[in-house]
Parts: sequence; C-alpha cells; structure tokens
Amino acid sequence: MDYIRDPAEIYRQSFATVERESDLTSLPKDMRKVALRLIHSCGMIDIVDDVAFSSDAVKAGIAAIEAGAPIICDVEMVRHGIIERHLKHGNEVLCRIADEATRSLASEMKNTRSAAAMDLLKDKFSGAVIVIGNAPTALFRLLELIDAGAAKPALIIGMPVGFVGAVESKQALIENSRGVPYIAVRGRRGGSAMASATLNALAAGLKGGL
Amino acid sequence: MDYIRDPAEIYRQSFATVERESDLTSLPKDMRKVALRLIHSCGMIDIVDDVAFSSDAVKAGIAAIEAGAPIICDVEMVRHGIIERHLKHGNEVLCRIADEATRSLASEMKNTRSAAAMDLLKDKFSGAVIVIGNAPTALFRLLELIDAGAAKPALIIGMPVGFVGAVESKQALIENSRGVPYIAVRGRRGGSAMASATLNALAAGLKGGL
Repeated sequence: MDYIRDPAEIYRQSFATVERESDLTSLPKDMRKVALRLIHSCGMIDIVDDVAFSSDAVKAGIAAIEAGAPIICDVEMVRHGIIERHLKHGNEVLCRIADEATRSLASEMKNTRSAAAMDLLKDKFSGAVIVIGNAPTALFRLLELIDAGAAKPALIIGMPVGFVGAVESKQALIENSRGVPYIAVRGRRGGSAMASATLNALAAGLKGGL
Repeated sequence: MDYIRDPAEIYRQSFATVERESDLTSLPKDMRKVALRLIHSCGMIDIVDDVAFSSDAVKAGIAAIEAGAPIICDVEMVRHGIIERHLKHGNEVLCRIADEATRSLASEMKNTRSAAAMDLLKDKFSGAVIVIGNAPTALFRLLELIDAGAAKPALIIGMPVGFVGAVESKQALIENSRGVPYIAVRGRRGGSAMASATLNALAAGLKGGL
C-alpha cells in the first residue's frame, strides 16, 4: 500500500500541515508550540480557540521540569501519553488512581478515586506540574486542597473532558487559579492526549523542531 | 466547592446529557450504546456523524470478547483506557510498541514502531479484536498483513488520529475491510480514548446500563 512510513517524515508533514492550516498569531510566541502540539494530538485545528492560559504558564512549566519537579497525573492514560525520553531531570511521574488506598479514601470522602488520588499526592504538590486529562473531580479537588492550605504547584494543566463538571471545573481554574500558572482547554473537549501533549511540549523545551 | 462527587451520579448525568443532546435514531440499536460511549469519551456530540461500521461489527466484537479473544492495542494509551474489570473471559490485552524487538524491526522495515508492533503480533490476529487509537501506520500495516495472508481478526476498531495518514488509512479500511467487521471514525479525529471506549462498550456487553 502507498503510505508514508518514515517516522521523521510523518512528524515533519504533520506539523507542516498544522502550521499551514492554523493561525496562532494571537498567541504569545512561547504558547505557539504548545498550541501546535495540542492541535496535533487531537486532529482539530479549532481546539486552539478554546485554549486558555496565564501569561507565565509556559515559562513556569519549563522551569519546573528543568528543576526536576514531579509530574502528577490524574489517570494512567495521561501518564502513558508522556514521552519519558523528554524528561531529563529525574522527574518522577506519579499517578495514584489505581492504588488500593485511593479506593478506600474515595469511599470515605464520598468522592471519586480521581479526587482521592489528589489528596494522596498533596505532599508532592510544591513546585510540581499537575496534569489533569480526564476527571473534572480531580481538578475541583486540587483547587479545594490549595484553598485548604496545600502547597502550590508550579503549573496546572487542566484538560478534563466530558459532560459533567468538565466545563465548570476548567472555568473555576481560569477564573481563579489561586495564583498558580495554568494552561487549560475551555468547554467539554479535553482528554488525556491533549493533556500529555501539553506536558510533552514543555518537556521538549520548545527549542528547535517540534 | 459545589460539584457532583458521586461517581454513579456523574455517570448517570453524563449519559443522560449525551442521550438528550444526540440523535442516534439513524444507527442500528446495537451501535447506539457504542456511539454513546464514543461521544462520552471525547465530549463531542457530533463525533457520531463520522462513525462508520459494518453491520456485523458489534455482534462480532462481543462474540470475540466472550470467546476470550486477545485484545491487540497499537499504543499503551489504548491499553490503559481499557477497563479490565469488563474483560471476564481471560482476554489478554497486548501491546508491543515499547518492546526492544519492535524498535529493531521498525528500523529494518523502514516503518514506524507502531507498524512493526503489528508484525510482531500477527500470530495472534486470528479471532482477535484489534484496537488502533493512535497510529495510521499500524492500521495500514494491519491491512497489508491481512493481504499477505495473516489470519483475519474478529473486529478492527480503527480510530487513528491526526494529519498524516489518519484519513487515508481509515478510508482504506472502510472501502475494503478485507471481510473483517470494523468500527471506525472517519476524518482526522480519533484517538486512544475513543478507541478504548469502543472496546469498553463491547466488553460491558451493552446490557442494562451503560
């Protein structure tokens, strides 16, 4: 069959297409490569219209990763979307969703496992990059924990998806991120692929080629 | 903060919203719950307009899963999107993308690791469910292997995403699925979440609640 097999060529043509079809001129320069990777991850040029971010987000995310900060993920799909070879500073990638302790804490808290997993990781928040690609309740709970005095992370990537709480949790983050830099996707769209692509863009350092 | 914490209630309201907003009457009954889960996985009601399938796909997928068929995934994100508690018939969930053997075969074949991983699993194709949520080259290679005489799987879930080969590989599947039942999402959209949601819908048996 006739198709492009060379990974480097696939990569090159993919990003060339995204660059040709998208208009990222309204974004600050350091957000453009994040936006390109976001579009690339979901196949939708117009996702960029829903991207929201604080002006310090890209810089803060890169600095945290380069300082060896832990990367905290809400679900395993996010963890497995992160390209580990880009993490060169001993960053731990953490996800507690499947732990036995998470299940029992969730039932005690009368909340989801995704939310309980945030509680179990709150001692790691300080300076961390928190990547939420699935569960609105994880994002709500993260904001609650910060309000209750948990240490502030360096960056929140807030991209839960779906029909209950996704819109609202991301709106809560955007309206008041508690002083924490953030990158989010407004609305119902989001997901593990977009969230991990954002982290990958930051971890790859935004230097040179995508 | 004020948000819905109860997982069962989140689930109920999510699917109620999808059912209220979508029109699935053009689909055969057994495809409707697959479509609901697809919509749920990506937050996009209109994804259903791009769903393509053979008339025997749902039946074939359920029968294969109930017969204990292996589930072959193109990438780890798909594997981790599959809800294992729904797999009650000893089904193996296989993914070879990260194997050392895959890397060297890919370089020998001058193709991607995703494509090479299909070659390494071709002895498992017979009666399997193959779930492709990321790599167009995995879907192209799968069709080539079947053309070259590999055993036919029971079902192909074809949902690679992106700007190079995604449209074309899915079109190739839809135009000539080599007699293999399939469920696909036309166009650039797709991804691990949609692909694993489709498998989860089949594995949950489509009985009773979603």
